[in-house]
Order: sequence, then C-alpha cells, then structure tokens
Amino acid sequence: MSRFGARPETPKQLFDEAWREMAGRVGKPWNGKVDEAWIGTVGFGGHQPGNSSALFLQGTPSLGAPAHRVENACASSGFAIRDAFLAIRSGTVDVALAAGVESMTPFSKAHRGYWLGVSGDTEVERAAGLTFPGVYALMARAHMQEFGTTREHLAAVAVKNHANGANNPHAQFQKPTTLEKALAAPLVADPLGLFDCCSTTDGAAALLLVGEDRVPEFTDHPIWLTGSGAATDSLALHDRAELTGMPATRKAAAAALGMASRSIRDMGAVEVHDCFTIAEIMASEDLGLFAKGKGGFAAAEGKTGLVASIPINPSGGLKAKGHPLGASGAGQAVEVFEQLRGLAGGRQVKDVRRMLTHNVGGSGATCAVHVWEADA
Amino acid sequence: MSRFGARPETPKQLFDEAWREMAGRVGKPWNGKVDEAWIGTVGFGGHQPGNSSALFLQGTPSLGAPAHRVENACASSGFAIRDAFLAIRSGTVDVALAAGVESMTPFSKAHRGYWLGVSGDTEVERAAGLTFPGVYALMARAHMQEFGTTREHLAAVAVKNHANGANNPHAQFQKPTTLEKALAAPLVADPLGLFDCCSTTDGAAALLLVGEDRVPEFTDHPIWLTGSGAATDSLALHDRAELTGMPATRKAAAAALGMASRSIRDMGAVEVHDCFTIAEIMASEDLGLFAKGKGGFAAAEGKTGLVASIPINPSGGLKAKGHPLGASGAGQAVEVFEQLRGLAGGRQVKDVRRMLTHNVGGSGATCAVHVWEADA
Repeated sequence: MSRFGARPETPKQLFDEAWREMAGRVGKPWNGKVDEAWIGTVGFGGHQPGNSSALFLQGTPSLGAPAHRVENACASSGFAIRDAFLAIRSGTVDVALAAGVESMTPFSKAHRGYWLGVSGDTEVERAAGLTFPGVYALMARAHMQEFGTTREHLAAVAVKNHANGANNPHAQFQKPTTLEKALAAPLVADPLGLFDCCSTTDGAAALLLVGEDRVPEFTDHPIWLTGSGAATDSLALHDRAELTGMPATRKAAAAALGMASRSIRDMGAVEVHDCFTIAEIMASEDLGLFAKGKGGFAAAEGKTGLVASIPINPSGGLKAKGHPLGASGAGQAVEVFEQLRGLAGGRQVKDVRRMLTHNVGGSGATCAVHVWEADA
Repeated sequence: MSRFGARPETPKQLFDEAWREMAGRVGKPWNGKVDEAWIGTVGFGGHQPGNSSALFLQGTPSLGAPAHRVENACASSGFAIRDAFLAIRSGTVDVALAAGVESMTPFSKAHRGYWLGVSGDTEVERAAGLTFPGVYALMARAHMQEFGTTREHLAAVAVKNHANGANNPHAQFQKPTTLEKALAAPLVADPLGLFDCCSTTDGAAALLLVGEDRVPEFTDHPIWLTGSGAATDSLALHDRAELTGMPATRKAAAAALGMASRSIRDMGAVEVHDCFTIAEIMASEDLGLFAKGKGGFAAAEGKTGLVASIPINPSGGLKAKGHPLGASGAGQAVEVFEQLRGLAGGRQVKDVRRMLTHNVGGSGATCAVHVWEADA
C-alpha cells in the first residue's frame, strides 16, 4: 500500500505506488502480469471519476488484461477482493489483482461533501441534507439510549486506534492521543466529535491473489484467503429495521466464517470498518466479539487493545490509518499480510495466525467480510 | 429490458421495470431470489451516482444478497455479465443477476457533457476538451484516409440499424431513415454527422444467469453462455499504437470464441458496440467478419443487413435501439435472448442459433465479448 494521508499525487500515481510496494513483496521473480484485475474506487473528486480500470493498469506490464472498476462506496475494494476470489475459484483466472484507490484531499470541501454524499440514498438522505456524520450520529444516539453507551466509550475507541496508528508507518496519523483530548474536541454531529470521525485521506492498496496451484511460483509463505462473505441492506438508514447494528455485517460474517469453517473466536485479531467510533463498537457486536450493547463497555475496559484477547484494528483502523474510501478494504488486507507475516513492528499482535477483515459501504448498505490464515 | 428512450423515471424505477420484464420471462415459478448481483452503471447524472448496487435490489426479494456496482463506462454491464459468469463458474454462486441501468436525459446538456467526458482520459483527452464524438471522429478520419472508407459507408450503417430498430418495440427510435437524410444531417464532429452518433438514452436491462445444474428449475429452453472474454487497452487514443481498430476487441473476441471453441463464422448474428457508425465498421473488422479496411464497403454493399450472411445489430444497435451507457451491454444480451428464442418479430434473424455480443468502454479501453448459443 501507499502511505495513507494528504497526497498531492493523481489517483494513478497513488495506484502505481501501491503496485510497486506489492510487486516488491512477491517472494519470487514475477513478470508483473495478472490475468485479471478488480480495482475499487469511489472515483472521488474530479480527476478520473469514471472508466479508470484500464488507466490504472497503464503503468504496469498487465495492461491488456481484463480490468473492472468496482464501486460499492467505502466497501469498493472489499468487493474487489471478493470478485478476484470468485474468479480464481472459477479456474478461469489464476493470478488476480484486487486493489483500491482514492484521492480526496486535493478537492474543495464542497466537492468532497458532494462526493461523500452520493454514497447515501439520494431521495431519503442526500436530498434532506443528511451526510454520513449525521447518519452515524443517529446510530450512536440510538445505541447510547438503548444500551447506555457513552461518549467516553466512543473516545476509548479513538484513543486505542490512535495508539495503534502511532506504530504504523503507512498511517495518516502516527501519534497517540488521550481520552481528555478526544472528549474535548469540537462536535461534528452530536454525539460524534472530531475524534469520533475518520479523516479525509488519499491512498491506494493492492493485493495479488493467486490460485492454490500456482502459489509456489510466487511465494513460499502464502497467506490463505479461506472465507469470503458479502451482503446488502437498504441504502438508507430510514428503511432499516434496526439502528444499533448492521444486519449486512452479520450476514457477511456468517457466510465468510462458514466458508472458512471457523468461528469468530478462532480469529487472533480483526480489522473492522471504523469510519466512526460507533461503527467499530457496532461491528464488534455484530461480529459476535461482544454481546449486543456491550461493545462500548468492552472498548472502555481495554478489551480490544493490542495485547487484549481480541485486538481490533491493530493497524490504527480507518480512524488513525486513514480512510481513502475505495482503498480502505484492500488496506485492511495489507495489514493482515503484515500481521500474519510478523512484519507489523510495534503494532504486531503476538502469535496471530488468523484474521478477519470487515469492510462496509455507506451506513451498512453493503458489507464484505474475509477470513485470512497464515500457512499452517 | 425496459423500453430504451427518454424516460423521466429514476434509475431505480428503470431497474425495477427491467427486473419485472426479466422475472416475467423465467419459465418456471421463481421466488425472485438471486445469490449475488452485478449491476453496471456509469452513475450518469446526479440522481444516485454512487453506492447504487444495494438500492437497485431494494424493490426485489433479493435485497440482502451481495451486490456489486460495476463501472467500466459503456462496457459496464458487459463486465457485469463477465463477473456473474465467473462467479457461477466458481461454484460459489448458482443464481446471478447481471444488469445495467442508466438515466441520462433528465439532466442538462452541460451535466451530460461532464459525465460523458469522465470516461475519457482526464489528462490527455478531457482536459484538452476532447469528448467522444471527437475521439471517434479521429478514428473515422484515419480509417477513411487509410482504407478509402467514405461518409456513405458510415451512413449505410445508420440506415441499416434504423431499419432494424423500426421492428424493435424496445428501441428508442422505431422508424427507418434514408441514406440521403443521414448524409444531409448536421455535422457533429467532422466527418461524423448526427446520424453517425448514438443518442442520449435512459433505460435498464437485466439477465438471470443460472449454473448448469440448476437450469431445469428455471426453464426448459436455456440460452447457454459458452464463452466470455475481456481485455483492456490504454484509456486515451493518444497512447494507442493504432487508430483504425481496437486491439481490446480482438483480444476479448479471441478469448471468448476460444473458450466456446467456436469461430466467428459459427455466429448467426452479432450485436456490436456501434456508439458511432465508425465503431460498427471497426468492430466488424476486428471481429474478423471482414478484412481490415473492408468493413465500410461491406456495410454499403448490404452484407450486414437482417437477411445477409452476417446480420450485425439486428436490434437496431446502440444507434437506433439507444445507448443508455451502463445498460447497453446487458441490452445486447436481451436481444440475443429474443433472437435465439425466436421472439424477435419483424427483426428475427432466420434460423439463428449462435450469437456474439461485443461491448466497448470509452474508445476501446475496455471490451467484453460473450458467445451465446441456443439449446442444441
């Protein structure tokens, strides 16, 4: 992956950076050719919002191979991973690229507001002026009211993720913060303050997925993608039966864990979609790590830290690592690679062998979950 | 498919119309559930440019199933078909939706110009003011200079496609035209006149793809998708080695025909991507129907009409049927369904048993080709 942050480069340059990092990590000599590519991007901003899949391949030896742009809002590259996985399972594709790219900071705040808004339901949310901090604030408020979750619980997620991000050289924010600072930050959408919200981020991430039979040509130390699940739900929060969790997360996780024949208890760490602190708390409950309503308490009690029984977002999460929309799902998988290879330095989870990634589009309209395992 | 044309409905309403048409054509009782969905759309215009995949499923019993938005410009739903095909081949998905949607006419000309432009290369084409009529005019001019193709050749394509469209109740334009009228129309981008350019169109099309083992639950008369191929090339014409044809078409067709173990001569008719008349001529050459440089002459000699040896675009093509960007690839496949089932009425190709569809994104940056066959 590229470093995430405020990057003046074009989307194509960011992609090229991630590609080079990826190619440099292939263990054996590789000609740079993939059979097919899936590249997630919201096409944020004005640079190349459409028809970008071929353009991204232009700087690589893979131009000519089929390429698909996948756009499922912030879950774009989670779904790109799923597409690549299914294609390899088909036997038609042996070597697949799953990647994600986004460039956000070069554009004006108004332009950003427009492009972020389009991932909401136009008729029910966007036309009413409801953007994502507002949507997640509604969920946070409902969670507080129903389960006693507090602003301190939310802030505990931010503090933990910033502590992890401080040890991630790819992260946008690499310094810790405190509960006091997080709670004192300005409100963005009550009850969510500045530290409850992920940032505006540019970046790219890329994965090489290879069919089982071909793995020895690429590496002696593969990470296995053993489960993939995905689901949808209504685009607008307004049309959901439930405000305090995401049915799409539960469905996608059940499918992915079922395919892998694993339980959530088998995971040594998870990377979840913490676009807002409340989202991490809901994910921790929907994934079955904590009972419904207990996710905030668990975070505040330190049960999700780097040395806890279930580390959540060792990378720093979207919160500290940054959230370049279409690149975030692929970025989660890069963290899995580093963790399962033991390359994660100061944020290394001890003895981690299996991880789950959880990538959400919108406020839960789309969700992709994957299960990854180190070589036995 | 919905009727193509100027439609005031929202993208979701257009999708719902195509879904209902599709569901009504399933031969046996069906619960309306797909395992996974791929929906192509450029997200043209301002209504719901992003995160639309879940929204489209909201009016169906399939909400909850994984759904992907695929965006490869005008080849979006051709690539959605490929994704669905690969997923079924994987064995993970048995029942897949491949669809496409676009709404264009409700938006201002300036807005349309912006959204059409984004499918070109921003740095090399869009920032220079080069939009698609200009790009294809450059290709037409090169083809004329190199091979003696004339404006009469181009107009012959338009006349033939309008004659076919006159018999297509789903087409945007259902009346024939004449060579004189086509040649007398105002120039859009020299040498392309109004009749050389497809129109601004709204519409949707949807396909149900089912794994071989499950077919008997759905129909006794399946159409078999026997070959799928796709390819990319540089996004900008500027970066191509060749102006008078599309290498991506040749690669994609070779892959699709190879998978199907068929030759182009085995096809009884083809639906090609005639966003401009010159595009149909180039496609007829790249697909190997005519020798390089002879496509225009063949069209003018009537070799591609409904009763010729190789009918091209019996539907009326993008030219007369209309070109709702992301829906056009799926719309081509609906024409295949009607032709191979013998439902095409006045535009029925006699005894047709096999067809090929050819769907292009941009000026040839992406291309998806599929081979379809009637039950033996």
